Amino acid sequence: MSITSQKPGTTDNLQRVHNFNAGPAALPLPVLEQAQAELLDYRGAGMSILEMSHRSSAFESLMQETEQDLRDLLGLTGEYKVLFQQGGASMQFGMVPMNLRPSGASADYTVNGTWGRAALKDAQKLGATRIAGSSEATQFDRVPESLDLDSKAAYLHFTSNETIHGVQWQSEPQPPEGVPLVCDISSDFLSRPIDIRKYAALYAGAQKNAGPAGVTIVILREDLLERVPPGLPVMLDYRVQVAGGSMHNTPPCFSIYIVGLVLKWLKAEGGLAAIAQRNREKAGLVYGAIDGSGGFYYGHAVAHDRSLMNVTFHLPGEDLEKAFATQAESEGLVGLKGHRSVGGLRASLYNALPLESAYALAQFMAEFQRKNG
Amino acid sequence: MSITSQKPGTTDNLQRVHNFNAGPAALPLPVLEQAQAELLDYRGAGMSILEMSHRSSAFESLMQETEQDLRDLLGLTGEYKVLFQQGGASMQFGMVPMNLRPSGASADYTVNGTWGRAALKDAQKLGATRIAGSSEATQFDRVPESLDLDSKAAYLHFTSNETIHGVQWQSEPQPPEGVPLVCDISSDFLSRPIDIRKYAALYAGAQKNAGPAGVTIVILREDLLERVPPGLPVMLDYRVQVAGGSMHNTPPCFSIYIVGLVLKWLKAEGGLAAIAQRNREKAGLVYGAIDGSGGFYYGHAVAHDRSLMNVTFHLPGEDLEKAFATQAESEGLVGLKGHRSVGGLRASLYNALPLESAYALAQFMAEFQRKNG
Repeated sequence: MSITSQKPGTTDNLQRVHNFNAGPAALPLPVLEQAQAELLDYRGAGMSILEMSHRSSAFESLMQETEQDLRDLLGLTGEYKVLFQQGGASMQFGMVPMNLRPSGASADYTVNGTWGRAALKDAQKLGATRIAGSSEATQFDRVPESLDLDSKAAYLHFTSNETIHGVQWQSEPQPPEGVPLVCDISSDFLSRPIDIRKYAALYAGAQKNAGPAGVTIVILREDLLERVPPGLPVMLDYRVQVAGGSMHNTPPCFSIYIVGLVLKWLKAEGGLAAIAQRNREKAGLVYGAIDGSGGFYYGHAVAHDRSLMNVTFHLPGEDLEKAFATQAESEGLVGLKGHRSVGGLRASLYNALPLESAYALAQFMAEFQRKNG
Repeated sequence: MSITSQKPGTTDNLQRVHNFNAGPAALPLPVLEQAQAELLDYRGAGMSILEMSHRSSAFESLMQETEQDLRDLLGLTGEYKVLFQQGGASMQFGMVPMNLRPSGASADYTVNGTWGRAALKDAQKLGATRIAGSSEATQFDRVPESLDLDSKAAYLHFTSNETIHGVQWQSEPQPPEGVPLVCDISSDFLSRPIDIRKYAALYAGAQKNAGPAGVTIVILREDLLERVPPGLPVMLDYRVQVAGGSMHNTPPCFSIYIVGLVLKWLKAEGGLAAIAQRNREKAGLVYGAIDGSGGFYYGHAVAHDRSLMNVTFHLPGEDLEKAFATQAESEGLVGLKGHRSVGGLRASLYNALPLESAYALAQFMAEFQRKNG
């Protein structure tokens, strides 16, 4: 695919906004351009990718190539299985305990935001759980400061980045020897290198860094499949999904196709180390504007746990926060309203958000403070 | 949207094949053209529909309009709830008994093909079932000739059209008084008018007549929600999905958007009665070629139960069948190979397949017989 620099603004009469949406979120412009160019005729097939059988050789190649690109980016060895699933990360909240917590066993959960709490809640419905650590008492402004771990837990689950609260684990929690680490990595997946050997399973809704809504990537270490109990409905059974190569039934073809294009863009951009560097720069610009504001802007999360993906912050009073979001939108900076459960503002700075957009936001913040501070 | 006549062949250098795929399948050309035109900028938003928050007013309008168009086409009254789900019809194989079969109750299943058998299998894993009728003894060449119905069944389930075997119910099975009728209507959904009052619940993977892969439409009569047991994982709980308006979590936005365009196309084409008339004409052309071949072509399904959507047929010997598929493909008629479990040929004639394509197939069949008969 052709990789061109992505600059918002006017190019060939195309007006692109600065897109700070929390997900679905910005996609690389070259990905959208390629999808548009081949939407009526997928590479000479005489039909759209939307119209193509998932059993066609063209689509099977696409699946294989997409999986291989993901393996390359993450350094996945053969013992890890890759699945393209439906239902979002929320479907995995149920599937993880159904498949990976043997009857009678308990699973440990750390909770540092809305999504971790939701994962815990589904696991509680289906069997025994323990809360190994929580920051609910401080409004999920950090990751748990200490963990109380069960050395016999079926697994330890954590949410690497809490999209709503803007809290991110700077490094993985360390489970007791032999306890598999399971991660909801939806909102910082592919945003930085990870040491995959620390993980037994991870899952990510694609609509943050990896693609559009409609597909969820699940990565499982092979030995975990031995735990899957008999009698699960086919679509909820990891073994069935692995055996079928994510095609036990028709997969979400177009979403996988876009993920494939995003992965090629990411490789061309230099991979996870390069994108992590750019993500640090973008977050540096916005946190810089907060930290340099003398308290006019103040973050929801404590500094040492704040997220490079979702910057959550407040202004003095709700009226100013509303004015900020409205004026920003009128200047082409969209998606900055905070989640209703936390309020304030939120700037999501996923991989595809250009550095220029973070710079534009930092400039807008300085200007807004100058007028209203 | 602009509606133009869809003709395969060369238009503005666009070479469209005759697409007989069983699903994902042909989409209306005007739908693809509109999706292409607005892929980089959704109606002036400055971003792609792929990048847009599902909580934005633009996307919420799209959801409401799509649901309303579906309600208009099917004549749905307020007591029916409409859901846009993920996981395909196969996910509903588990969700239907989980939600709609109370503890201790039994559900009746009719089985006339691969998909009905799969629905039964998931229901058997989760509780009590009865087979109310099956045509397995005759290789699923028809719908069951008689039904043995349980007057206390939690529901009666049937598969209105079996995509693989090419067998279609000409009218709905009649459950005992008070037993809700539940239908997997995936492959003939929106292909003809139905009397919705006969149905308590129906579900359809979109990738046949309604849109691309990645979204499944579920329609539930409100009173069924009282049966949903407590304690289901959120994504598997119909009450949660209804309460959240299919947006408990991020829905498959792009697939829903395409469904919305398809529904507008269908309304502009005259709705279900008009499309049913065209579907009868298309099937008439292909079945005419079979029936007029003096036995050179012969159907898998018995004549009175054969499908208007999927025409399954054989030729004298596998070699001829292979030659048929290969030559057809070289002439731009693609997707005609039968499913591996049945063999032979299959021509899927969904809504978006133009009359011209059915005509081209009938012509090809006559010509192939002339050369090889």
